[in-house]
Amino acid sequence: MSLVIVGTAAFDAIETPFGKTDKILGGAVVYAGLSASYLYNDVKLISVVGGDFDDNLDLLKSKNLDVSGIEVEREGKSFFWSGRYHTDMNSRDTLATDLNVLADFDPKIPESYQDCEYLLLGNLTPIIQLTVLDRLKHTPKLVVLDTMNYWMDIAMDDLKVVLQRVDVLTINDSEARQLSGEYSLVKAANKILGMGPRYLIIKKGEHGSLLFGDGQVFSAPALPLADVFDPTGAGDTFAGGFIGYLAKVGSINFANIKNAIIYGAALASFCVEAFGTERLQNLTDLEITNRIKEFVNLARFDISE
Amino acid sequence: MSLVIVGTAAFDAIETPFGKTDKILGGAVVYAGLSASYLYNDVKLISVVGGDFDDNLDLLKSKNLDVSGIEVEREGKSFFWSGRYHTDMNSRDTLATDLNVLADFDPKIPESYQDCEYLLLGNLTPIIQLTVLDRLKHTPKLVVLDTMNYWMDIAMDDLKVVLQRVDVLTINDSEARQLSGEYSLVKAANKILGMGPRYLIIKKGEHGSLLFGDGQVFSAPALPLADVFDPTGAGDTFAGGFIGYLAKVGSINFANIKNAIIYGAALASFCVEAFGTERLQNLTDLEITNRIKEFVNLARFDISE
Repeated sequence: MSLVIVGTAAFDAIETPFGKTDKILGGAVVYAGLSASYLYNDVKLISVVGGDFDDNLDLLKSKNLDVSGIEVEREGKSFFWSGRYHTDMNSRDTLATDLNVLADFDPKIPESYQDCEYLLLGNLTPIIQLTVLDRLKHTPKLVVLDTMNYWMDIAMDDLKVVLQRVDVLTINDSEARQLSGEYSLVKAANKILGMGPRYLIIKKGEHGSLLFGDGQVFSAPALPLADVFDPTGAGDTFAGGFIGYLAKVGSINFANIKNAIIYGAALASFCVEAFGTERLQNLTDLEITNRIKEFVNLARFDISE
Repeated sequence: MSLVIVGTAAFDAIETPFGKTDKILGGAVVYAGLSASYLYNDVKLISVVGGDFDDNLDLLKSKNLDVSGIEVEREGKSFFWSGRYHTDMNSRDTLATDLNVLADFDPKIPESYQDCEYLLLGNLTPIIQLTVLDRLKHTPKLVVLDTMNYWMDIAMDDLKVVLQRVDVLTINDSEARQLSGEYSLVKAANKILGMGPRYLIIKKGEHGSLLFGDGQVFSAPALPLADVFDPTGAGDTFAGGFIGYLAKVGSINFANIKNAIIYGAALASFCVEAFGTERLQNLTDLEITNRIKEFVNLARFDISE
């Protein structure tokens, strides 16, 4: 049974205080797919790219990712995004957004994808996320939705329709406040859980994340890093690792969702160590295992009353 | 062997989005003393107050706190602070600071305090913190220093002298950046640990705290609260609970320091639930035990490779 990921495949040009890149491989489906590939062996991608993307499809295939759902528009150009990060690495300016082939994206679901059991709706316009849900013949066992403030600004009604059909929502703290109209994250979580999702993950960047659901709360740490080189794709990488872990263990409960968050955070902590997908392209199982151990040691304490 | 706490004893007038108070009991030594009183039974306070403070000394005595080191200047008035919190509760404007008797504070150490084994230097001018250290005949087993950006602005050289004589420093994230000149908290911690303290605790408010020392890192969660009613004194309460726990267990190592942070955070989580010291005046052991359990559940995950 497969894990299907839908999202953008793109070229990014990135400036950080540490340097800048030319057009490099990016996009939610790429980051999430690479991340999930380390945890699950049946990962299928849905996206659209231009004729300029060819070599990168080979890269994805080499990581055992199924790209038959990535439509190639030979005459078109791939989605392009360019941004510049501020010194704090938590805020950024978008310098360019060229939708190109993404402007008319109509997601195709290959017949071979209809065994989808785990679905990650990566950050995209809510209408496309809905279309993917509608075109799957069976409701997946788990639907995870990633979105952002941009869609809350321009497509909140559509987004609320999608929310009713997902199991897990991942957003950051300011987006949780925007979506709920509540400043307190506890109150925000209660409202958002009333909108559809069974679980809410609020990402707080360098401060880790909070999980709400099943009447419980979990606070996951972030690994303190000496340098955050490039935060691009960290959220997508988190989401890919998160759902990849759940696909691997095959059982959805609060304990497994907590562990999935740790795996997602661990993979995201690699992502930010280099520009773009560079660090995600050649991780070893040992590196991942050791990083997970760092998270365990980071958060462990033992109080016996 | 006693735990000695030095700091301000004050009246505060506080405005938050939830309401405002007249002059109520406040000050670092009061918050830290009340907090420590729940964990250790030999806690001695050092401060100075005016003739207007009388009833409050009785309150402190009723919590088994030794107030013989709190000098009462009958003709003077107690230190007064007034502030207004912004909606996010993380920033505030100071409306008034009347030093009153604090202006000429010359800390006296009663002979009965010379058995001091645990010393908390609460937030105060570094020169007074140094004076207390100098007037103790024996170096305490553990010295914890709390300070703030104000002293970094106007007395950095003095502060750096104090830092060379303390074991644990507690500051917030922006203060860690100011003290070290480093944005990355990992780099900031490495620099600050080179200034004297063996352990550094970086407090991040609603995001918990980080402990650095012994070549290790620990990330402590904060309890997500539906309402933060009044954050005044939360840092002092944290410090008091932290050192109170270590005095109780009597052994200083990384594992105990981690637990001490959880106790400090738990007591601070009560502090912010009401105005001023109200919630700290009548906690029960059961309430504290249950709150500690909430922290354990909040942070626990179990990954078996």
